[in-house]
Amino acid sequence: MNGADALCDTLLAGGVDVCFANPGTSEMHFVAALDRKPQMRCVLGLFEGVVTGAADGYARMADKPAATLLHTGPGLANGLANIHNAKRGNTPMINVVGDHATYHLAYDAPLTTDIESLARPMSHWVKSAPTADAVSAVAAEAIAEARTPPGRIATLILPADAAWNETRAPLSNVPPPAARPAVSQEAIRDAARKIRAGGATTLMLSGAALREKPLAVAGRIAAATGVRLLSQQSNARLEHGAGRTPIARVPYPVDQAIAMLADVQRMILVGAKAPVGFFAYPGKPSAMTPADCEITRLAEPGDDLLGCLEALADELGISRTTQAPVAQLQRPELPTGRLTPDAIATAVAALMPDNAIVCDESVTSGRQLFRFIGAAAPHDYIQLTGGAIGSGLPMAAGAAIACPDRKVLSLQADGSAMYTLQALWTMAREDLDVLTIIFSNRSYAILRGELRQVGAGEPGRNAQRMLDLDNPALDWTALAKGSGVEAARATDCETLVAHMKAALSRRGPFLIEAAI
Amino acid sequence: MNGADALCDTLLAGGVDVCFANPGTSEMHFVAALDRKPQMRCVLGLFEGVVTGAADGYARMADKPAATLLHTGPGLANGLANIHNAKRGNTPMINVVGDHATYHLAYDAPLTTDIESLARPMSHWVKSAPTADAVSAVAAEAIAEARTPPGRIATLILPADAAWNETRAPLSNVPPPAARPAVSQEAIRDAARKIRAGGATTLMLSGAALREKPLAVAGRIAAATGVRLLSQQSNARLEHGAGRTPIARVPYPVDQAIAMLADVQRMILVGAKAPVGFFAYPGKPSAMTPADCEITRLAEPGDDLLGCLEALADELGISRTTQAPVAQLQRPELPTGRLTPDAIATAVAALMPDNAIVCDESVTSGRQLFRFIGAAAPHDYIQLTGGAIGSGLPMAAGAAIACPDRKVLSLQADGSAMYTLQALWTMAREDLDVLTIIFSNRSYAILRGELRQVGAGEPGRNAQRMLDLDNPALDWTALAKGSGVEAARATDCETLVAHMKAALSRRGPFLIEAAI
Repeated sequence: MNGADALCDTLLAGGVDVCFANPGTSEMHFVAALDRKPQMRCVLGLFEGVVTGAADGYARMADKPAATLLHTGPGLANGLANIHNAKRGNTPMINVVGDHATYHLAYDAPLTTDIESLARPMSHWVKSAPTADAVSAVAAEAIAEARTPPGRIATLILPADAAWNETRAPLSNVPPPAARPAVSQEAIRDAARKIRAGGATTLMLSGAALREKPLAVAGRIAAATGVRLLSQQSNARLEHGAGRTPIARVPYPVDQAIAMLADVQRMILVGAKAPVGFFAYPGKPSAMTPADCEITRLAEPGDDLLGCLEALADELGISRTTQAPVAQLQRPELPTGRLTPDAIATAVAALMPDNAIVCDESVTSGRQLFRFIGAAAPHDYIQLTGGAIGSGLPMAAGAAIACPDRKVLSLQADGSAMYTLQALWTMAREDLDVLTIIFSNRSYAILRGELRQVGAGEPGRNAQRMLDLDNPALDWTALAKGSGVEAARATDCETLVAHMKAALSRRGPFLIEAAI
Repeated sequence: MNGADALCDTLLAGGVDVCFANPGTSEMHFVAALDRKPQMRCVLGLFEGVVTGAADGYARMADKPAATLLHTGPGLANGLANIHNAKRGNTPMINVVGDHATYHLAYDAPLTTDIESLARPMSHWVKSAPTADAVSAVAAEAIAEARTPPGRIATLILPADAAWNETRAPLSNVPPPAARPAVSQEAIRDAARKIRAGGATTLMLSGAALREKPLAVAGRIAAATGVRLLSQQSNARLEHGAGRTPIARVPYPVDQAIAMLADVQRMILVGAKAPVGFFAYPGKPSAMTPADCEITRLAEPGDDLLGCLEALADELGISRTTQAPVAQLQRPELPTGRLTPDAIATAVAALMPDNAIVCDESVTSGRQLFRFIGAAAPHDYIQLTGGAIGSGLPMAAGAAIACPDRKVLSLQADGSAMYTLQALWTMAREDLDVLTIIFSNRSYAILRGELRQVGAGEPGRNAQRMLDLDNPALDWTALAKGSGVEAARATDCETLVAHMKAALSRRGPFLIEAAI
């Protein structure tokens, strides 16, 4: 076998059987190896941002890493923004970046680049497999790294000659996924003491604490002690809707975040970070909590968060049979008349299929969406985690590949959708069950608000041309059809609802341009 | 004034009056400053690869740098592939990358990234302007760096507080563009000696040596001495067509390149690099010249290449009034019948308007294009220089902004076009005079050849799905219309010619999908 075969075999031995790819010449032996490994599902993206964003969405829903296949430094660069989002969401991911043959680097051919310098800021681990003999061991290490809780970005550089040379080196064993370490009993006792001491305490959750089971434990703690539950503004995955413990998120606008947290005296972090401003604004603080708020890091994102919450409930003497309130299913009336962001959120809440995956990159238009769907049919809520827009459509595609039996609702701002619209083609190619709704406001609406927030005033003519996406307006039904995805446009609620019902009643990709 | 004003004023003082932009929150003060600087033309791209690719195309044709405005690390990352192409083409460029306010970095907000590590591999110079007072001096340095011959990539990191804080620091003087250093008389004499010694000698040109005037001098040298003229496989800009000195390019396929150079005994480099394989292939050499070929670096890309060639001609005793052969205008017969890559190239040669700019990212389909248009109406030929596909459409947009009175012919492979198709919207928004022809072969055709070249054989089912862009086929007329660009499809030569004639008879963007 050659190095490329060794890589495929090692990935498969580690349970990594989906590879999102945009290959080039230096990856041709890996591509050829795919023909000998039918177990490896290889999904083509027509741009690397699609590849890495899909790997992020896949891993969030599959709870295991996918591989990506990227072509030299520029191919990696194209995928970095969504690797950044994945890293911020603690997503496990294995990036295979093909490079020139080792001996060819000295010739400085046009695509020669410092791949490591590019990879480092968005990776937890970067390593080259310099020879075919080394490939399996380095790949096994990459898998172990990626699987280290809560999830890490491992970037493996694969020179072309390491892929094409023959190797007789035995395949390396892939260690089983590492267990999440338990939080110390001392830390649990300390947190319990603080909760018992009274005062306005917030239990701040993120990561694995936002699955149904740990959330329910947190709900019991809240019901018994009066602490408030809160989650980060951005979370990789949250089990949400009817039957689940309700939890609010820290709002994006700093004034609202500061107001929400104004009287918090104590914050206990369970897999979460203390809330900070997404951006800095002149004269406003960077930390969203009051200066005298006591912040306790109870559990790191990679810790056993369910165990931690259970131990905390036990320490607080809360019976395991206590019932905490969960959201009761409420389907709102279907909206009528003028199409607004809230009307779209209402329609989503009303028509939400059971066990859907809601992929939210609706940005400004969808700021209320999360609240609107709190009592909708149960669903997973996945969202942009690193602030690099252009994650939504690829993430929806990846989630659909991880969960072929679940409907994916991709709720998408138009400006952000344009970054990686090539994902629509992958949805069509793979026949993914994704309903995309484009919130078409024809502007970078977030920036209009931000211009005011940073004290730069109202936009004039030159500035306006940087914030508006009109003149010409994008036609999303044409863009979708050009990519092989059926699409329709709605300018009122009745049409939106009709299109949604039709799309939800059958499988496969569909796009609705909701003109708001 | 604030730091953003100081930046704008310094750029304008340095003659940088076009800014390609995709701003975010941290750049809002720069955007607000634009309202106070109507002289700065700000062009929005809906993805950063469009922004940087357009800046590349602009600078190649304007012979001066544009600025780009990018949002934090991920925004820069999205633009890196085309910055890489620009760097390989020695294009001057000034990237302004907004970052968090300096004091906000410690809070590790979601978009916090190591911008310098990302920028370094694709930049000649990276520097942060840490305070408003420092902005003008750092910007002046960036301009001087970018203008250093032959052209450099300068990346300036602008923290939000450096942009929004007030400054009373005087604006820094921007030094005039540096002159290109002369090649030493000794080097000229040495080269002349080698040419006089006889034997198969190739004068290898690139960069500024490929403009009409230096090419004509090189043509005189070739006519008088029998040396062969050759240019790199990839060049930033080449003045080509009728009335210009004909020059061949080193072919992309290594077997052809090696065959073309098989009997070269001596190669003299004038602003060029010695030819190497674009990629390595098992059992094939990295250098395209024979092992015993003597290679002389006569002039670096930043040297005075016209002066060098004139001095060389003088040293060789060639009269300045000697006439060297130039290409004579030949308009081929219009093609008919079945649409093939060569038929498209023939139509382009036949219908080429005077003084057009041909922007070539036709990749595999257009490999013969350059040869076909050697006797077409005079034009500038600009092409992908760094191998990172997705440069064509943005480059065409930038070239059209630099030269509003010239028709741009954007000849574009479909797979590459998908990388940065957002450029179509910028063409519509700015009403750019670009005719795009998509060579629609619905595959990464280059990779089919490369799979064989690297010895990986014929693609099976899994591999084929990585090389084909069909199922579904992209509909480029729909993608263009969705972006606001009028478009039509051609499946035979007669229709192609009719659409081309119509598009060439009027101004503004148009796209033809040529199904081959």
